Amino acid sequence: MARNGAGGGPRRSEKWTARRADIVDTSAHVFAQRGYHATGIVELCDANGLGKGAFYHYIGSKEELLAAIHDRVMDEVLAGADRVAAAGGPPSAQLAMLGDELLDVIYRYPDHVWVFLHEFPALTAERAEQFRVRRREYEARVEAVLQAGVESGEFRDIDPRLTALGWLGMHNYTYLWLKADGRLTARDVAKPFADIFVRGITRT
Amino acid sequence: MARNGAGGGPRRSEKWTARRADIVDTSAHVFAQRGYHATGIVELCDANGLGKGAFYHYIGSKEELLAAIHDRVMDEVLAGADRVAAAGGPPSAQLAMLGDELLDVIYRYPDHVWVFLHEFPALTAERAEQFRVRRREYEARVEAVLQAGVESGEFRDIDPRLTALGWLGMHNYTYLWLKADGRLTARDVAKPFADIFVRGITRT
Repeated sequence: MARNGAGGGPRRSEKWTARRADIVDTSAHVFAQRGYHATGIVELCDANGLGKGAFYHYIGSKEELLAAIHDRVMDEVLAGADRVAAAGGPPSAQLAMLGDELLDVIYRYPDHVWVFLHEFPALTAERAEQFRVRRREYEARVEAVLQAGVESGEFRDIDPRLTALGWLGMHNYTYLWLKADGRLTARDVAKPFADIFVRGITRT
Repeated sequence: MARNGAGGGPRRSEKWTARRADIVDTSAHVFAQRGYHATGIVELCDANGLGKGAFYHYIGSKEELLAAIHDRVMDEVLAGADRVAAAGGPPSAQLAMLGDELLDVIYRYPDHVWVFLHEFPALTAERAEQFRVRRREYEARVEAVLQAGVESGEFRDIDPRLTALGWLGMHNYTYLWLKADGRLTARDVAKPFADIFVRGITRT
C-alpha cells in the first residue's frame, strides 16, 4: 500500500499529488467511455501519456484508481453536506441546498459519477467497505434533515429512510441526462426538483 | 439473424420459445453477478446446462442475449403503461398507477433491471437504437400523464419533461435497494412515493 498516497503511505510532493489527481480524472473519462473491466493498464498509460513504470509511480493498481475516482465524488458530496449543515436553517431549506450541492457534483464530474454509479460493485474487500461506509454516511445526512423536519412539524409524518432513498434516486439519476453541454444547468434542475420534493413532504 | 426468434426469423415451437426465455432469465442472473463484459459464452453455457451448439440453437450471440434481457424489461414496463392508459382516470391516479406498475417490474426482475441499467451502453447499432426508441416511448407515456394534469389544472405549471425525468429517477433507482427478500414490497414503496410526488406537483 506504499503507493496509495493516503493513510499509511509515504508523504508525497504537491507535484506528485497534483499529477496523480490528473491521472484519476483522465482515467475516469476512459472508464466512463469503455467500462472498468474492459480497460487495461496499457490503455490507461496511453491516455495519460505515461509508461508503465511512471504510471505505477502514481497508482498502485487499477482498483486503487477506481477507489480514487469514488473518493473524488464522495469527498465533494460530503463537503457539500458539511456546507449545508454549517448554513443551518429550516429543514426544507437544507434539503433544497443538499439538492443544489449534489447536482453540482453530478454536473461537474460526469465521468466520475458515471463510473461511481456503474462500477462500484468492482471494488473489493476494504475498499468496498470504505465506500459503503461513506455512501451510508451521506445517506444519513439526508435522513437527518428529513427527520429534523418531521420532529419540528415542518414535514408530515414521512419515513425518513424511505424518503431519503426517493430523494437520492431523483437526484442521482440525473447523471444520465444532466450534461455540461446540455440546455440545463445543475441549478435549472435543482430548483424545480426541490419544489416538487419539499411540497411533497411539507405538512399542509 | 435467423436465430433471433423475432422479426424476420423462422417460426419456432412453443418449447423452443419457453427454453429460450429460461436461458434469458438465467443469463440475466449471471450478467448481474459478474458483469456483461466479464462473462464469456462458456460461463453462460455452464449456467444454462447447455453445450455451445445447443446454446447457439437458442441465442445468436451474447449481444442478442443482452438485447433480449432489455426487451423482457421493456415489454413488462410498456404493458404496465398500457394498463394504466386503459384504466384512465385523473392524471394523479394514473401517475400513482404508473409507479405501482414500474416498481412491480423492478421488484420481480431484479437481475434483468440491474443488467438493463448497468449494461445498456454495450448494445450497439440497431439494437441500441431499438432500445433507445422503446425507452423514449416509455418516458413519453409518463410525460403525457404529467402534461394532461397541467392542461386539466390538476397539476401546477411544471415542465412535463423535467418532471418525468425526476419521477423516473425516483422510481428506477429503487433497483439498488428494493429486493424481493427485503422488508418492503413494491407496493410499500410505490404508495409513499406517489404521495410525495403527486402532492409535490398538485395545484394548491
